[in-house]
Amino acid sequence: MNNLIIQNAAQVVTCSGFSGKHGKEMSDLQVIENGSVVVTDGLISHILKADESIPVNKQDYEILNATGKALLPGFVDPHTHFVFGGYREEEFSWRMRGDSYMDIMKRGGGIVNTTRATREATEEELFELGRQRLDAMMRLGITTVEGKSGYGLNRETELKQLRVMRRLNENHPVDIVPTYMGAHATPAEWKGREDAFIDFQINEMFPLVAKEGLAEAVDIFCEKGVFSIEQSRRYLTAAREHGFKLKMHADEIAPLGGAELAAELRCLSADHLLQASDEGIRTMAERGVVATLLPLTAFSLREKYARGREMIDAGCMVALATDFNPGSSFSASVPLLFALACIYMQLTPGEAVAALTINSAAAIDRADRIGSIDIGKQGDLVLLQFPSYKFLPYHVGMNCVETVIKRGEIV
Amino acid sequence: MNNLIIQNAAQVVTCSGFSGKHGKEMSDLQVIENGSVVVTDGLISHILKADESIPVNKQDYEILNATGKALLPGFVDPHTHFVFGGYREEEFSWRMRGDSYMDIMKRGGGIVNTTRATREATEEELFELGRQRLDAMMRLGITTVEGKSGYGLNRETELKQLRVMRRLNENHPVDIVPTYMGAHATPAEWKGREDAFIDFQINEMFPLVAKEGLAEAVDIFCEKGVFSIEQSRRYLTAAREHGFKLKMHADEIAPLGGAELAAELRCLSADHLLQASDEGIRTMAERGVVATLLPLTAFSLREKYARGREMIDAGCMVALATDFNPGSSFSASVPLLFALACIYMQLTPGEAVAALTINSAAAIDRADRIGSIDIGKQGDLVLLQFPSYKFLPYHVGMNCVETVIKRGEIV
Repeated sequence: MNNLIIQNAAQVVTCSGFSGKHGKEMSDLQVIENGSVVVTDGLISHILKADESIPVNKQDYEILNATGKALLPGFVDPHTHFVFGGYREEEFSWRMRGDSYMDIMKRGGGIVNTTRATREATEEELFELGRQRLDAMMRLGITTVEGKSGYGLNRETELKQLRVMRRLNENHPVDIVPTYMGAHATPAEWKGREDAFIDFQINEMFPLVAKEGLAEAVDIFCEKGVFSIEQSRRYLTAAREHGFKLKMHADEIAPLGGAELAAELRCLSADHLLQASDEGIRTMAERGVVATLLPLTAFSLREKYARGREMIDAGCMVALATDFNPGSSFSASVPLLFALACIYMQLTPGEAVAALTINSAAAIDRADRIGSIDIGKQGDLVLLQFPSYKFLPYHVGMNCVETVIKRGEIV
Repeated sequence: MNNLIIQNAAQVVTCSGFSGKHGKEMSDLQVIENGSVVVTDGLISHILKADESIPVNKQDYEILNATGKALLPGFVDPHTHFVFGGYREEEFSWRMRGDSYMDIMKRGGGIVNTTRATREATEEELFELGRQRLDAMMRLGITTVEGKSGYGLNRETELKQLRVMRRLNENHPVDIVPTYMGAHATPAEWKGREDAFIDFQINEMFPLVAKEGLAEAVDIFCEKGVFSIEQSRRYLTAAREHGFKLKMHADEIAPLGGAELAAELRCLSADHLLQASDEGIRTMAERGVVATLLPLTAFSLREKYARGREMIDAGCMVALATDFNPGSSFSASVPLLFALACIYMQLTPGEAVAALTINSAAAIDRADRIGSIDIGKQGDLVLLQFPSYKFLPYHVGMNCVETVIKRGEIV
């Protein structure tokens, strides 16, 4: 029935009052102690303090006793590549012995490997793998996930990935926000003709994806040796004309000026940003571009972490994401994400919570519907087995989420 | 009935042939492809290759189809402090802003904090908390866990911790191997009288613990500012006379020569070892002392990791453990342990598996009964959702364990 009362939570961590852009301290989470939340018809209808009585007919509601437990908005993962075929566990050992990501790509590993397997996989196989991965994410508290295409790199397979996401969205409790990422790499058949490959994206793929309504945003891997600043500007500018929102993989490996380009184009978000310049950070803050940081990837690749602390201090809206993918971050570990953000990027626990709820909702342009406990928003919530959100980074690598609620339903 | 056939596993990772001491390459896991394992009356009775038929009456057995999945020995966690009262999530933020462990101890935080809460907790409360923690560990594949006292630091509470572990061992599928650690810290009432506190351990506590059979081993925190080498030698030598096996927290923060002392006394294991000297490592290898490494603690404290790669190359038998405790490692994350061992300590995936199975069994003197898939050993097994043990570090921070088997029973 999607009517639920979550009663007497030790903390209701609302993350309320964020504008969806900055202008508010990220660490001010607006916590209500011993509060209750009512979800009616899937939407949050009441947020009550300890001394307020619950003004609905309890017979119409399922009741969840939350004594001793903290209630938070469901986690929003705003950057993943979770629909793919094949695994790369062997490559993992190459990386461990010190080979660079670019070296592995040159040897035909990396994206090429996954592209082959994703092209070979049937839609049904990808659907089943995707379903299992969404289940694992949901158990960790993720209630909305962004998913990118980009392992097809040809017409048929890119559309297959996006269609799989559409079917998963219709058949799984977790909401999926699809992004088209045809410019994830240049496939073998286009090597040396990168500009023509960008033309192909603009002239053939964008109209197709737009026509079928298969993606809300587009993304590009703007990186030395992948796609240049100029190619990225051309690709993204054309995407905007087709009605897409814009996202970028920016300044991950080399400081190419991706953050600056994201600010110039007022992208929704720029992601990775390990090598972002001071100027890039400053202009992103100025233009309201969300800085989506992916520390699981840096951890997996033994890279240094993005300057999360400095970005927040510079006024950037910082979001966190898993980057779930079969190569550089085969992980949806929300617990490890919290630990890395707080221990290795110097975010406070409160800032980390904001970064994985309201700010990550903003990174996919959903801050009006999800990401905080506010009246009228979707009843997407997580109940921890502990009384405070501060256990999230403290219980290192361990899942603190006891109950996941999606649109008022315990899932 | 504890009769189980695990049929057609993509890999049976036996870890067989280890002597329980070194003399075998840690990375040679003895993998059988498409193998089956039979557990009869709780013990492993048959290990079968793909072409061998199963020589038991299948009607007497539960059957688990393991197609596409890897079967491993259950994980053995040989160093934890999992029975305690209270949490220290606030201290966690002190550490994040850079305060040292020793600083926090000086301010009355650290062990003192947990000691107070553990003294105040009833046996029933500690039992219930312990049960929940064992459940979480079991879901991550841990089938045997070592647990230390050491948060009581007085007669009554130390015995309470050990009795809770005895009750948990009798009431929970996970086997618990108890260690007495009266010398975990000097409590306020003994401050400045450390030698007398050691006398109290030797003359009053050891006989009590031995008489009730409450612990198999004793342990001491040999560290600058905690207990000296001389105090540790005296404590451990007396413990041996009472029939206890010996373990040490050695060379964690300062290079005190703990590894050398562990070798001198032929301890079962020396643990932590972040600051162990070359000479300490050499003599530990020579004397067969297990080097138990705790990278979750180093990760949580932002310390450098122990030199696991060098220790293995020097001939040490290296084990891994979680160090689960409320301060420096509030974590039982086996997945993160694998990731840290392989990505940050340069162990191969095979070495990490050996370190958390047969070598960790040796660290608690159980290598004759658990830690490998050998005929006659306990039917303690984990089935992964993936076809290879190489997914354990690769699926970063994610639980790969699908099914846990304890003495032939799916738990």
